Amino acid sequence: MKIYQANILFTPSPEKLEVLEHGYVVVGDDGNVVSTYSTLPVEYQGHEVINFGDRLLLPAMNDLHVHAPQYRNHGIAMDMELLPWLNTYTFPEESKYKDVAYAKRMYSRFVHDLWSVGTMRAAIFATIHPDASCLLADLLNEAGMGGLVGLVGMDRNGPDSLSNTAKEAVDGTLRLMEHTASMPLVSAIVTPRFVPSCTPQMMTALGQLAREKKLPVQSHLSENPSEIAWVAELEPESTCYGDAYLRYGMFGQTPTLMAHCCYTDGEEFELMRKNHVFAVHCPTSNCNLGSGIAPIRRFLTAGIPVALGSDISGGSGFSIFKVMQYALQMSKLQWRKSQQKEAFLSLSEAFWLATKSGGSFFGKVGSFEPGYAFDAVVVDDAALNFDNYSLPHRLERYIYLGDDRQLTHCFCQGKEIAEPKLCC
Amino acid sequence: MKIYQANILFTPSPEKLEVLEHGYVVVGDDGNVVSTYSTLPVEYQGHEVINFGDRLLLPAMNDLHVHAPQYRNHGIAMDMELLPWLNTYTFPEESKYKDVAYAKRMYSRFVHDLWSVGTMRAAIFATIHPDASCLLADLLNEAGMGGLVGLVGMDRNGPDSLSNTAKEAVDGTLRLMEHTASMPLVSAIVTPRFVPSCTPQMMTALGQLAREKKLPVQSHLSENPSEIAWVAELEPESTCYGDAYLRYGMFGQTPTLMAHCCYTDGEEFELMRKNHVFAVHCPTSNCNLGSGIAPIRRFLTAGIPVALGSDISGGSGFSIFKVMQYALQMSKLQWRKSQQKEAFLSLSEAFWLATKSGGSFFGKVGSFEPGYAFDAVVVDDAALNFDNYSLPHRLERYIYLGDDRQLTHCFCQGKEIAEPKLCC
Repeated sequence: MKIYQANILFTPSPEKLEVLEHGYVVVGDDGNVVSTYSTLPVEYQGHEVINFGDRLLLPAMNDLHVHAPQYRNHGIAMDMELLPWLNTYTFPEESKYKDVAYAKRMYSRFVHDLWSVGTMRAAIFATIHPDASCLLADLLNEAGMGGLVGLVGMDRNGPDSLSNTAKEAVDGTLRLMEHTASMPLVSAIVTPRFVPSCTPQMMTALGQLAREKKLPVQSHLSENPSEIAWVAELEPESTCYGDAYLRYGMFGQTPTLMAHCCYTDGEEFELMRKNHVFAVHCPTSNCNLGSGIAPIRRFLTAGIPVALGSDISGGSGFSIFKVMQYALQMSKLQWRKSQQKEAFLSLSEAFWLATKSGGSFFGKVGSFEPGYAFDAVVVDDAALNFDNYSLPHRLERYIYLGDDRQLTHCFCQGKEIAEPKLCC
Repeated sequence: MKIYQANILFTPSPEKLEVLEHGYVVVGDDGNVVSTYSTLPVEYQGHEVINFGDRLLLPAMNDLHVHAPQYRNHGIAMDMELLPWLNTYTFPEESKYKDVAYAKRMYSRFVHDLWSVGTMRAAIFATIHPDASCLLADLLNEAGMGGLVGLVGMDRNGPDSLSNTAKEAVDGTLRLMEHTASMPLVSAIVTPRFVPSCTPQMMTALGQLAREKKLPVQSHLSENPSEIAWVAELEPESTCYGDAYLRYGMFGQTPTLMAHCCYTDGEEFELMRKNHVFAVHCPTSNCNLGSGIAPIRRFLTAGIPVALGSDISGGSGFSIFKVMQYALQMSKLQWRKSQQKEAFLSLSEAFWLATKSGGSFFGKVGSFEPGYAFDAVVVDDAALNFDNYSLPHRLERYIYLGDDRQLTHCFCQGKEIAEPKLCC
């Protein structure tokens, strides 16, 4: 058992920012929260208390959409929209991951950078390459961090260097499943890249795999108008883009993440709601690639689950704190566009999206309520708190103005996570 | 004379990113650039060369719209749109600047933070308070940085604690003019807060002052739909919001900065073009307050001058590098909204806006062409350049991923600017 003292902030529900000034969190030996307290109960008195002083203790970040093999491209090459961007920059870069030495160099940086911004769990696209994908799982596991790693299936409209067959995608995913079987916090996720990259054979095979192995699914949905038009051509029998996943058993038949959903409406909206499909909101990426802005308020009102994603390298930075900032800002532009009808996100809603809502895809993750995994970050915001701000304002200033310098400790499932080593 | 060697990047024109790998810039004793060179000419050989190695040398940033007395509020309180936000958060904070000790504490941080992100010149709103406004000019001048400081005129619709008379605004501005007369890089700017805050008497008096003293003008324009509707009520004789400034001699009769211009169109657009009024684009602020997005591409196409502003504390951060990022991103959302008709900004255009275009309001500032003030920042981006990126990609990565940690030197008008001291 461990007891930590700090200024504790978390969101049991979207509109409730729980604030415990110099409060306590008791963490069991299983790495789960026993409870939080404003005053330490008698039964714990005498136990060692690890006191973080005036620092903030927050649930760690969850990144529900990120492409590890686009690491080298993050922060560059944002001069095109989605489809030409994929062909020009992304596919050539991902092709390099056939080379395991290259993968090791970049993936070790990738894991390091997730850690550096307090992201303890992530749903990750790898590439078609099984060796490199298993290596990525190893690196996450060695760091002690959590995640879902997807070996990507893509058998049309990509370069030969970045194409696999349905059988290879299934076998690679099975291998990743076995490879991660003994890892406590890392596992495999079925990952068709997106409909334009996957023939009906690929979709059928991956849908069957997800069902048989009860694996979750991640892919992309309705990110960009040209992409949507292309899907309509490629899958004329589907009534909408989302239906193209549904027909193959990958739209909520097992837990499903769909990145972007900028143009989801009508039937697709209804299918997401009915099937409890997660919309992964990636606002920095959507800005960088000029995709559009997802209707987050409408998703939330309808009960469609929403998480946040960095979408490296469409997104330019790793920090989910910064993605929160963009989610807030883009919701304000949506509010304006809706003639002030669709309420913009509150700070606590944005924080909840990054923590409890996103974390829920991994289980009881993203809150400090009893039974939740103790995934946490400690923030020393003294430099930002030069004038006695309130604790909610300190959280807000950290989101808008903070960076990795203020993160002093990270915890995942109760364990403190040391800085992951860079390889070469 | 000084000679610096580094990787030099600047934009003589919007689409031309000049790149000199391990190039040279020769700076005269007047602090102006003599010239840049790929190879050092014979006549300079033997002179000492200050070699910044593999670092980047860029023109310094220019922030053409920033509210110094909103320093304490930056990064908090972004849960309202413009008018209620002003009344709830901004006016009470600005009222505190009657207290010179408070002003000194906050303004010294303000100047420090401009410096920390490489902003060497700024057009600044102070408050109605002459003592504090002169103090702000002193702090900028002592730091060696450049700027225009505006004593704010506001005589309606504000709290009593933050109202002055037309005479007080004129006298305060004259005092600031005298106070800065001996300062090489700091001077006064006529600053009606915005039309809703200024009676016709205030507007008349400030317009006359600008004309008589040949002072530049700064204010706000067409930021928010409620504000625009209010101006139409308050100034029924004006044909548009911009016309309300024009009628009082403050819309290009002397050099004029108008912040925001999110909804500028039709006649107002034409008036800006004809009168060479600067549109100061503040995209982070416009996102935070849900204002809207200014039509930057249309301004540029029409030849309306455009600069960038942080608009602290509507804007959340000081860095104009980050404002560039937002300008790029918002231009992509505009491009999408225009059905791909209005081209989004290129990286070099955004860089030009922050440097040469914004700098032009201060004279020959913002480029390394001969005769330009040597305002520069040195960027040690080794941590970001882990894989031999091209120089344009290094610039792009610095814009998207960098921060104050990478800025190793700042220069303003040829002088190296040391870290400004914080006061108490």
